[in-house]
Amino acid sequence: MPQATAYAIDGPTGRFARTTIERREPGPTEVLFDIAYAGICHSDIHTARGEWGPVKYPLVPGHEIAGVVRQVGAEVTRFAVGDRVGVGCFVDSCGQCEQCREGDEQFCDGPGGTVWTYNGTGRDGLPTAGGYSSCITVEADYVCRIPEGIELASAAPLLCAGITLYSPLKRWGAGPGKRVAIVGMGGLGHMGVQIAAALGAEVAVISQTRSKEADGLRFGAAEYHAVSEPGTLRGLRKSFDLIVSTVSADQNIGALLNCLKTGGVLVDVGLPEHPVTLSLGTLVGQRRVLAGSNIGGIAETQEMLDFCAGHGLAAQVEVIGADDIDAAYDRVVAADVRYRFVIDTATFTA
Amino acid sequence: MPQATAYAIDGPTGRFARTTIERREPGPTEVLFDIAYAGICHSDIHTARGEWGPVKYPLVPGHEIAGVVRQVGAEVTRFAVGDRVGVGCFVDSCGQCEQCREGDEQFCDGPGGTVWTYNGTGRDGLPTAGGYSSCITVEADYVCRIPEGIELASAAPLLCAGITLYSPLKRWGAGPGKRVAIVGMGGLGHMGVQIAAALGAEVAVISQTRSKEADGLRFGAAEYHAVSEPGTLRGLRKSFDLIVSTVSADQNIGALLNCLKTGGVLVDVGLPEHPVTLSLGTLVGQRRVLAGSNIGGIAETQEMLDFCAGHGLAAQVEVIGADDIDAAYDRVVAADVRYRFVIDTATFTA
Repeated sequence: MPQATAYAIDGPTGRFARTTIERREPGPTEVLFDIAYAGICHSDIHTARGEWGPVKYPLVPGHEIAGVVRQVGAEVTRFAVGDRVGVGCFVDSCGQCEQCREGDEQFCDGPGGTVWTYNGTGRDGLPTAGGYSSCITVEADYVCRIPEGIELASAAPLLCAGITLYSPLKRWGAGPGKRVAIVGMGGLGHMGVQIAAALGAEVAVISQTRSKEADGLRFGAAEYHAVSEPGTLRGLRKSFDLIVSTVSADQNIGALLNCLKTGGVLVDVGLPEHPVTLSLGTLVGQRRVLAGSNIGGIAETQEMLDFCAGHGLAAQVEVIGADDIDAAYDRVVAADVRYRFVIDTATFTA
Repeated sequence: MPQATAYAIDGPTGRFARTTIERREPGPTEVLFDIAYAGICHSDIHTARGEWGPVKYPLVPGHEIAGVVRQVGAEVTRFAVGDRVGVGCFVDSCGQCEQCREGDEQFCDGPGGTVWTYNGTGRDGLPTAGGYSSCITVEADYVCRIPEGIELASAAPLLCAGITLYSPLKRWGAGPGKRVAIVGMGGLGHMGVQIAAALGAEVAVISQTRSKEADGLRFGAAEYHAVSEPGTLRGLRKSFDLIVSTVSADQNIGALLNCLKTGGVLVDVGLPEHPVTLSLGTLVGQRRVLAGSNIGGIAETQEMLDFCAGHGLAAQVEVIGADDIDAAYDRVVAADVRYRFVIDTATFTA
């Protein structure tokens, strides 16, 4: 069995510590790859700290994974040793249900459903362990190719943050002639600005403050609005065709909906702790749409990677070592990261 | 000036009384038509009773209007004397703004905006008066043709109730292979069931009780569910591609959203008095959509009328006389109508 050096947390108030875990010998349709970098997603933190329900500790988080293929199963034709690859939020699904057949494996309705990259249960009945680890074995169908031209470190966050923004922007028509607002300039939002701009839309950022304004404009935004300034949302009434909100803090969803033009669409990808309160007249009176979106399927994730490579887009990352994970968690919670921490597994050696 | 016999209410607690109002001599692009029937929409009641904000009393409600052309202006080519015509919720708009150009005159952004059929202000600066009236003068571009094959009495409610359901059902893909639920079996809902079935969808009704089940099935529903029976919505989890809610009472929108399949769409056309509370995770976790819809434009209303005629659909109405309006209002509020009251203007003569 391949051994992996991994960093695990043993409880909601624990700290990360080095451990060794076993990975599967790759089966005929599987790929074993050496992980080079793993991004730190805010949902890693929610999960690790037990804020999103039951956790199987010790937990090895990480679902923004980039690396290089070490070994492939006999039937694997799409990948070869040395290929640059990535894995996102899930590593398996039934492959048979309507969702899987339509390429929406993240919504698998089959027995066991989508197998999440960590804190899940694989088809082998064993708990899954994520990317804070030196290697991983994954079904080839759930592995994406990282195109040349994107560094592995800045590619890793695309596997979650990138696809989370790309999918709704494509689905809801971000493109030339469309005014698109990205709410929140964090790990998700900074990818949203880049992708929406590359799709040809006229992009605005709606952030809490102006502290990231220069970055926002550099990422491709044409306008930058700070809601801490009184009257900001009122002044943006009926301005946008599409708004993507990446915010997980409680917010006034009605005020944001009022920033949509007639027929406009607000897509939420954040998960605020509390329910929102909404007057349905805000939707009815202007035929507006409030939609959710949740990462994307494998084919769409590959499409996003190719799109990013083609347009020279990538995450702006801060590379850290294994010993920095706990501190990085606190800094993510404090929104003190520009714009994604990525763990360098080269630091895993004792 | 053409005189009209009309029924007006003079305050939020008033009763309807006969009066005489003046209509415009039709200008070159206008049509004057004799009103045969006017439907009673629940929004007439909300407006007349002052529940939806300021009202210009005396008020002549009515925005489900069917009749026969008496006179046309010199430049009117689409209509001739004797034509069967209808008017819905609005009688004018700027015609120049983006919304008007796209056929969404109900969302007119121009100066003055959409001119509502009653309780509005026309381009002549005078208050508008609606269909509880013996005749009306309207710009020809805001008049629809009522096809042969629909009685005028059962056509009248199509001008609001019909288009309110047709527009979202078409827009969001009701059709063969789609499971569509209509929530509420009132004036709106009973049209929704018929239209969704005629579009080829598999239709379910979600009603409060089973009291209208036989009608629902007769209108084309394949299933009928009563939320007064415990566990009904839980049992419908992930069942529908599209749900259209016509309910204006407060309801658990989250429970209804959970009845949508992955990627499903809930369109609300009702206006509950209170805001709804919604966990965004219900949308995000299954990529669901919550949308509003508000009647439809003139071209779409004509399309709806032609569709209904082509499929033999119409409103099921209860024809009443002028003296019955007050009692009918109380019965609508008590949900005691199957399924729309229509005022016969032949009863207006002294």
